[in-house]
Amino acid sequence: MTINNLLNSPGEWLRGDGPHSNIVVSSRVRIARNLRNFPFPGWAKKADRISVLECVKPAVDALPEMGEAYSIFSQDFSALEKQVLVERHLISREHAAKGLGSAVVMNKKQTLSIMINEEDHLRMQSIRSGLNLKSAFKLIDKVDTELADKLDFAFHPQLGFLTACPTNVGTGMRASAMMHLPALVLSEQINQVIQAVSKVGLAVRGLYGEGTEALGNLFQISNQVTLGEAEGDIITRLNKVIEQIIHHEVNARQGLLQKKPVTLLDNVGRAYGVLRYAHSMASKEALNLLSYLKLGVDLAFFPEEFQHVIDALFIETQPAHLQKGSAKKLQAEERDTLRAQIIRGKLVSFPPPDADRALAGGGSPPAE
Amino acid sequence: MTINNLLNSPGEWLRGDGPHSNIVVSSRVRIARNLRNFPFPGWAKKADRISVLECVKPAVDALPEMGEAYSIFSQDFSALEKQVLVERHLISREHAAKGLGSAVVMNKKQTLSIMINEEDHLRMQSIRSGLNLKSAFKLIDKVDTELADKLDFAFHPQLGFLTACPTNVGTGMRASAMMHLPALVLSEQINQVIQAVSKVGLAVRGLYGEGTEALGNLFQISNQVTLGEAEGDIITRLNKVIEQIIHHEVNARQGLLQKKPVTLLDNVGRAYGVLRYAHSMASKEALNLLSYLKLGVDLAFFPEEFQHVIDALFIETQPAHLQKGSAKKLQAEERDTLRAQIIRGKLVSFPPPDADRALAGGGSPPAE
Repeated sequence: MTINNLLNSPGEWLRGDGPHSNIVVSSRVRIARNLRNFPFPGWAKKADRISVLECVKPAVDALPEMGEAYSIFSQDFSALEKQVLVERHLISREHAAKGLGSAVVMNKKQTLSIMINEEDHLRMQSIRSGLNLKSAFKLIDKVDTELADKLDFAFHPQLGFLTACPTNVGTGMRASAMMHLPALVLSEQINQVIQAVSKVGLAVRGLYGEGTEALGNLFQISNQVTLGEAEGDIITRLNKVIEQIIHHEVNARQGLLQKKPVTLLDNVGRAYGVLRYAHSMASKEALNLLSYLKLGVDLAFFPEEFQHVIDALFIETQPAHLQKGSAKKLQAEERDTLRAQIIRGKLVSFPPPDADRALAGGGSPPAE
Repeated sequence: MTINNLLNSPGEWLRGDGPHSNIVVSSRVRIARNLRNFPFPGWAKKADRISVLECVKPAVDALPEMGEAYSIFSQDFSALEKQVLVERHLISREHAAKGLGSAVVMNKKQTLSIMINEEDHLRMQSIRSGLNLKSAFKLIDKVDTELADKLDFAFHPQLGFLTACPTNVGTGMRASAMMHLPALVLSEQINQVIQAVSKVGLAVRGLYGEGTEALGNLFQISNQVTLGEAEGDIITRLNKVIEQIIHHEVNARQGLLQKKPVTLLDNVGRAYGVLRYAHSMASKEALNLLSYLKLGVDLAFFPEEFQHVIDALFIETQPAHLQKGSAKKLQAEERDTLRAQIIRGKLVSFPPPDADRALAGGGSPPAE
């Protein structure tokens, strides 16, 4: 299948219909593997990189899980196309920077993606909608076993799998969930949650991983440790913590609905008003405002059918997705204008937030 | 007429139909006078204040210009009622703080208001809609002449009229215009204008006079000097400068429409969206957002008939006006909720900004 097929068909996780998908946007598990007797990609000469690619790619292409796959050499992607995949979390920023000697192979549903010659020789990832860490892990574990039959992975009896960066040595696994936590932010409980999560050895990051901001009230929760704990145990522990955070977010939403309905309505209403009538909007602002619309749907301020419109806008308003849809190269200012125009177009049939839909009568303020 | 009559009928200047009233909200001329042989109010003992009041009030009440007047002792106003008059610029903040021994007399149209025992024994003011400095001065000048026949004003042959504060000595006159200058602010030319105005001996202040912020892009331009220049000359000079500022504002609006239509639409659209769908709003934010709606009407983004709705909201959303309309004493948070509710109610039949109404076809972005 061609790059265009790939770019024009959003993957499974973007449909947003997995378990708890109102709070857990997506679950991801990735593992890092390297071939014995070859230098890591960052250290390898071009010839070595190409040898690794020639050895690994056929094995990956042949995986039964890949089926009719997208299998594309990095040099065949334009910078824009790579950026689109980064925005969909299908390849890493690091991989986007690679050229000759790298490749990515993805199944049609885009639930499985394997990068060759990123930081490690292999980075295999499964991404799923909602809280789906276990099934994501199951898939990756199976693929790993199948590839281990054909490829000679660098493995140390004491340390486990060897990786380019020491923080990945051992299992080579990073499991994460992207969570939408607007009520914990609004009720100022988020820092408490982040601290508690850090104490149990998990990391909280922003939308695009390490060192990025928590735009749109989106937080990525992941394991930090890859050494001394079995993969299944890590997944179970992470899953449990995520369920607790879901519980806190649900409570925070209920608390706000009961104690601060006006604050909630005000935030959702303002976001709606600005998104619907602005004529220029940066991508960060769009994410932050869309977060309140998403919350609004979850709280039944908006009809449920708008969930997919909003989820789609989270991705479609990202810079590369915007550029992809345009015939000519856009400057930042033109992107901001186009972004606002697209959002206005999507919201035109969108009614304003209606508190009565959510609040059980009584002292609730009118929506208009 | 009673206080309630006064509070429930907005004065002439609030109707916003004077010359250039899209840019000049109101024109005001006030003069300060004091009685010879009595200490200034700030220095006077209670008995002196009452003597002054008993001497001045009958003369003011009897002015033919007052007609069927509001004539009210300060102690008969509640703090809230005084605050309403301050928000309408009919009495000063200083006068609002006075109790026994002070009074205010106003004509029915509220174009003429005379405070007794404010900072000076008499502060006579005329306020008119639009650019109307000359007629405001004419009225005050006439009243001054009439009162001078009955009252013995403190006058020094070299210095002119004596006043409590030396900055008023001479003519005792302060003439000012309240200007709405959003395009000079948006195009970042406002500081240049303020500097130029200061250089010719005029002052630029915020909405409620000295030391207040320029909320809602409203700027008060007034004369600084009261000594050595005849009243008529001051008025003529001020009028000329104001006409120049109107010219600059009009040019800035045209410039923005031609060069930055998206920025304009974006500002107006966002203001519209937030005002229409917020559920809590502080009075400062309301003024700043209403300013863009007012600009939107001037630019024909909105139908002209909304001008009066917006002009009324400028006053009706002020804290004391809000409180006046409510049966119980409101906390700040409750006022913010009520303010947002009133604004939403007024905007419900208000269409979104429409660029096509203003921009002559071609290259203009769609409003929706």
